[in-house]
Amino acid sequence: MSTPRPGGHDPAVRGFASDNYAGIHPEVLAAIAEANGGHQVAYGEDVYTERLQAVLATHFGEGVEGWPVFNGTGANVVGLQSMLPRWGAVVCAATAHIHTDEAGAPERVAGIKLLPVPTPDGKLTPELIDREAWGFGDEHRAQPLVVSLTQSTELGTVYTPAEVRAIADHAHTLGMRVHMDGARISNAAASLGVGLRAFTRDAGVDVLSLGGTKNGAMLGEAVVVLDPAASSGLRYLRKLDMQLASKMRFVSAQLLALLEGDLWLRNASHANAMAQRLRAGLEAGLAEGSIQGVGLSQPTQANGVFATLPDGVADALRKEFRFYDWDAARNEVRWMCSFDTTDEDVDALVAAVSRETGSR
Amino acid sequence: MSTPRPGGHDPAVRGFASDNYAGIHPEVLAAIAEANGGHQVAYGEDVYTERLQAVLATHFGEGVEGWPVFNGTGANVVGLQSMLPRWGAVVCAATAHIHTDEAGAPERVAGIKLLPVPTPDGKLTPELIDREAWGFGDEHRAQPLVVSLTQSTELGTVYTPAEVRAIADHAHTLGMRVHMDGARISNAAASLGVGLRAFTRDAGVDVLSLGGTKNGAMLGEAVVVLDPAASSGLRYLRKLDMQLASKMRFVSAQLLALLEGDLWLRNASHANAMAQRLRAGLEAGLAEGSIQGVGLSQPTQANGVFATLPDGVADALRKEFRFYDWDAARNEVRWMCSFDTTDEDVDALVAAVSRETGSR
Amino acid sequence: MSTPRPGGHDPAVRGFASDNYAGIHPEVLAAIAEANGGHQVAYGEDVYTERLQAVLATHFGEGVEGWPVFNGTGANVVGLQSMLPRWGAVVCAATAHIHTDEAGAPERVAGIKLLPVPTPDGKLTPELIDREAWGFGDEHRAQPLVVSLTQSTELGTVYTPAEVRAIADHAHTLGMRVHMDGARISNAAASLGVGLRAFTRDAGVDVLSLGGTKNGAMLGEAVVVLDPAASSGLRYLRKLDMQLASKMRFVSAQLLALLEGDLWLRNASHANAMAQRLRAGLEAGLAEGSIQGVGLSQPTQANGVFATLPDGVADALRKEFRFYDWDAARNEVRWMCSFDTTDEDVDALVAAVSRETGSR
Amino acid sequence: MSTPRPGGHDPAVRGFASDNYAGIHPEVLAAIAEANGGHQVAYGEDVYTERLQAVLATHFGEGVEGWPVFNGTGANVVGLQSMLPRWGAVVCAATAHIHTDEAGAPERVAGIKLLPVPTPDGKLTPELIDREAWGFGDEHRAQPLVVSLTQSTELGTVYTPAEVRAIADHAHTLGMRVHMDGARISNAAASLGVGLRAFTRDAGVDVLSLGGTKNGAMLGEAVVVLDPAASSGLRYLRKLDMQLASKMRFVSAQLLALLEGDLWLRNASHANAMAQRLRAGLEAGLAEGSIQGVGLSQPTQANGVFATLPDGVADALRKEFRFYDWDAARNEVRWMCSFDTTDEDVDALVAAVSRETGSR
Repeated sequence: MSTPRPGGHDPAVRGFASDNYAGIHPEVLAAIAEANGGHQVAYGEDVYTERLQAVLATHFGEGVEGWPVFNGTGANVVGLQSMLPRWGAVVCAATAHIHTDEAGAPERVAGIKLLPVPTPDGKLTPELIDREAWGFGDEHRAQPLVVSLTQSTELGTVYTPAEVRAIADHAHTLGMRVHMDGARISNAAASLGVGLRAFTRDAGVDVLSLGGTKNGAMLGEAVVVLDPAASSGLRYLRKLDMQLASKMRFVSAQLLALLEGDLWLRNASHANAMAQRLRAGLEAGLAEGSIQGVGLSQPTQANGVFATLPDGVADALRKEFRFYDWDAARNEVRWMCSFDTTDEDVDALVAAVSRETGSR
Repeated sequence: MSTPRPGGHDPAVRGFASDNYAGIHPEVLAAIAEANGGHQVAYGEDVYTERLQAVLATHFGEGVEGWPVFNGTGANVVGLQSMLPRWGAVVCAATAHIHTDEAGAPERVAGIKLLPVPTPDGKLTPELIDREAWGFGDEHRAQPLVVSLTQSTELGTVYTPAEVRAIADHAHTLGMRVHMDGARISNAAASLGVGLRAFTRDAGVDVLSLGGTKNGAMLGEAVVVLDPAASSGLRYLRKLDMQLASKMRFVSAQLLALLEGDLWLRNASHANAMAQRLRAGLEAGLAEGSIQGVGLSQPTQANGVFATLPDGVADALRKEFRFYDWDAARNEVRWMCSFDTTDEDVDALVAAVSRETGSR
Repeated sequence: MSTPRPGGHDPAVRGFASDNYAGIHPEVLAAIAEANGGHQVAYGEDVYTERLQAVLATHFGEGVEGWPVFNGTGANVVGLQSMLPRWGAVVCAATAHIHTDEAGAPERVAGIKLLPVPTPDGKLTPELIDREAWGFGDEHRAQPLVVSLTQSTELGTVYTPAEVRAIADHAHTLGMRVHMDGARISNAAASLGVGLRAFTRDAGVDVLSLGGTKNGAMLGEAVVVLDPAASSGLRYLRKLDMQLASKMRFVSAQLLALLEGDLWLRNASHANAMAQRLRAGLEAGLAEGSIQGVGLSQPTQANGVFATLPDGVADALRKEFRFYDWDAARNEVRWMCSFDTTDEDVDALVAAVSRETGSR
Repeated sequence: MSTPRPGGHDPAVRGFASDNYAGIHPEVLAAIAEANGGHQVAYGEDVYTERLQAVLATHFGEGVEGWPVFNGTGANVVGLQSMLPRWGAVVCAATAHIHTDEAGAPERVAGIKLLPVPTPDGKLTPELIDREAWGFGDEHRAQPLVVSLTQSTELGTVYTPAEVRAIADHAHTLGMRVHMDGARISNAAASLGVGLRAFTRDAGVDVLSLGGTKNGAMLGEAVVVLDPAASSGLRYLRKLDMQLASKMRFVSAQLLALLEGDLWLRNASHANAMAQRLRAGLEAGLAEGSIQGVGLSQPTQANGVFATLPDGVADALRKEFRFYDWDAARNEVRWMCSFDTTDEDVDALVAAVSRETGSR
């Protein structure tokens, strides 16, 4: 039906590989165009970056600071580095993006030691944190001074505000600070039905990586300092970590497009709904027998569905849809939905799973 | 006449602070829009990044590889790191961007030691390189294994192809490799009236930071490996240095917009012409006495004009035009032109200089 | 009976805290004195360091290289760094010294990411290694290119030559290299009754941290490259990692004192025997009921005994003997024996344990 | 006359290569032996390290802290790192050991950027410092927050207390701190005829690398914090920088042997006197014509003599005496004297210079 543009791609093709396979939401693209023309002071002294501060205050309250950066790894590393002395370590889930998917950037770029803790569902708890939160004052041990949570998690699960609060209270009692990797923070908010503040600043999070890219931006995230006492030197660290955009107005304009109105929520809610539709379709198929041998390996609380498949099914499905293995050893795959996933996309995937498994 | 957009900026205002105060060239913005829609594989496996390789081959010949990154510091650090063992050092001009304006990123992020050499005009020579290119095999000395040139330089000067060739031959004879910081490479090519290849690959440069941002992109540069034997591990280094864009299609599309046709050259030629117009206006004023006490402190070979001003003049001019002090100790300023600088902008600056200095 | 020297310490006091609480074996001290006088070329071009190479060849065979360094963390970090590109990661036991007791030096100094794996006894296996040895070629994942074993382990256990061989074969099949932290390698050899080569070079270990300090030296370890293809740049890395002794003759002379004859083995055998005496005493007490409620939590294969104690017993014992908690959460302590531990020291500890637990 | 010990070296051979070619002063060796025996708490909780604090107070006054480390590079890097945030830079002479002879350790291990300034004699001045002490608050520029002086310098010159004071006042006014690389601090004190405090704490130095190795120790330096407000985290930094000795008592005992009495001064005074004797011999030869064509290229204020030699003379002399070229391009050599240099050694060198140059 659709055809690739000459030298380009076919805009009718979508898959379930990642929310960063999607493009730019039209309202974000329009905002980039709107910020164009004339000269603006480079490196963040522009009116869009200034306006972003005000918009962040509407979400998180007065006194927060937002520092736009290029990408999620950049936001995490710059933010964490600003929270830690050179001898600091970060307690995180063993599945945390900072541990599994950032190629060692925290260690190599920022000199941060990670203390990963196995979890069943990607979520830390005070008890799990305690497995690594010890040895304070012992110079032989990298000092565990920050807990990093991912919200929503890499496994598609979501911390409740109360769960974050319990972790933050525990961490603060230990003299630790709390970082949140919010690459998919909007999906968490949409899932919980609360604002961004409820499970961040109000729950004790100190520094946040606020995601834009997976929410419909071309690129752009921000380190948001919720408690200024928890972070220092961001101005310098963002630059030396090579995350300072010269034409920053265009990064800030994207974040404004998402956050000034409700686009952040519309996009996230839609992606979440698509994941729910996918899960519902799979569960219905399983219930009626049209889908067989498929296991749903994690709760579906945000925009990703994790499933174990019978042998060979993943490869068969991949002829039609792009997606990733999550744990190849047990045939577990991850299906991600994004702001532009359609009902038809989901239904086609469910139908394909049914076709590949139902007759077994 | 013009007015700021509500919550935005006044697109009629321009200055001479930097070519990165300018926005996005309309053809680049159109290319971003054209690459939008549907899903594309993230992290560089998209058709635009693939097409970029072919376009780079038209400029630099077969066998080169281009690795898109976010910004110039990122391009320099990733590229240099790929050229050096952990014990390597880089000989550069004392005015090199990597030494003066990257906040120590080469040292801190990549563990690279810089060996800066004072120069009169921002340009290295074989003789200047020899001041630091020694101690090979001595473990006490950081091993000087790369020479880094900036083209056009931070002082608005340009290396001829023969000058680059002499440096590269000298460096290669010493067992060193040659890196070029080409944040303004298009301005150099426009100035020299040759293609990008003449003073890079054909002159012995091994790895190039190819600039897009200052040439009219929103953001985007590329590490271009001209001699694959000079670089290793770029795939990993770009990621761990936090310069891997997930929605890379939009970075590559910008570079394509510049490089596939002649936009790169049109933009650079225009910026250079504006700098020449500015210099000519200043020289004419000096000749006829309408401008007094102004010194032109560097040749104007690209898009920047460097001038020393009588006391107080810089501040007076700054009421109308934004620009930077270069060497405040001697009242030296830098005026940069960009793709969107107009004749009227230049003439207004010349008139203002005349007004502020002519009556003295 | 004994008294501290004025301004000094009481040489009659010993404990069970660590083998590095002991001093210098008299033969090592004599060797330092013997190497004194006159001038020797600094930084390793001395006759003692040269002779060390020959002595290492008697232990490990021809073609090995030994690089003296100051301490164990230095040996591990320099050696591992020489085995890895900047994107490399190391699979290690979660109890490995490099992960738990080096304050993040591998990450911070060398930019190495660690991938720790929980183990029951401090020993890796091919299966345990596989939990982290995956993702080869994926730039998002730190590349797991080295396995690091500790021999004897931090838990007082010992790999057999066959176990090391199985691990090395597995690692090499995956394209990984094998590092051994041999801070207590002599204790392992003494325990196994084989030479140093049997479970290192002959079992497929590529690079070894050879310990001297815990074996009776004042200070001094060596990075021993068993397969030169597995390591590069050690000359430079040792220097830039600040582990290059200027008066290296005195470090090498200590290692010679240990390794040229059988002092390494005498010291280790004695320490091991003291640990066996301690364990036997505890077991006898448990059997006869004079000791109660004490659990022996690891096999005693080298010079350390790990035990769980009833509440309050550790603190009571500490009034007489210095030693460390291992896992305070479960009342587990570590008792280390060294080359100068005496029968009387051990018997006194057993008696004290009996006194504190027998009447319960 | 003398003969090498079997498998050892000839203790009658000395040269002029470096003060670290010398061995251990007998009183230092005796102190090591005296500290031996029994157990002492590792990692610095021993009585010798405690006593060292008191001895440092006799030299520098109350409130100073000394942190023993292995070597001079370690002392410099750990000390500087404790003085700087991650975005800090250090202004130093272009001839500073940290810039020329530490293989990039400050940059690579500690992420410190160096801003080297050319000097005529290895000595900074307020004016020279100002060449790099600018750009405060600009995130693009590595923040120059520390000045590092070497005393005595790498060129054998010595800062007077007033010169240090002028630099420190200037630095402090700029908000910068002052570090002193005192690898040869004793030679400076001996030269100036003042105590260690006069040109350090009393002159405004904040953190000192106190050298032991070149003063007659086997190995051992200390980071001495003169103003605690200028340094933080040394406990952790020393460990993570791999400079924490386990059997620290033996490092501290060496420093005690030097500093508790006057051995530090005797050794330094002797080495300085030997350098003066050498210079006097050369000058006498030049005056009477028995030496020709030799230039004395630096003042001889400590224990090194720098000279330019006629072509071929250096190589001829090297048949008898080991020493280093300093600037091979201009036939400049460095002759260093140490605590064990004898009158006969010096006279033999003067005679050899005379023999090789007098007949020309």
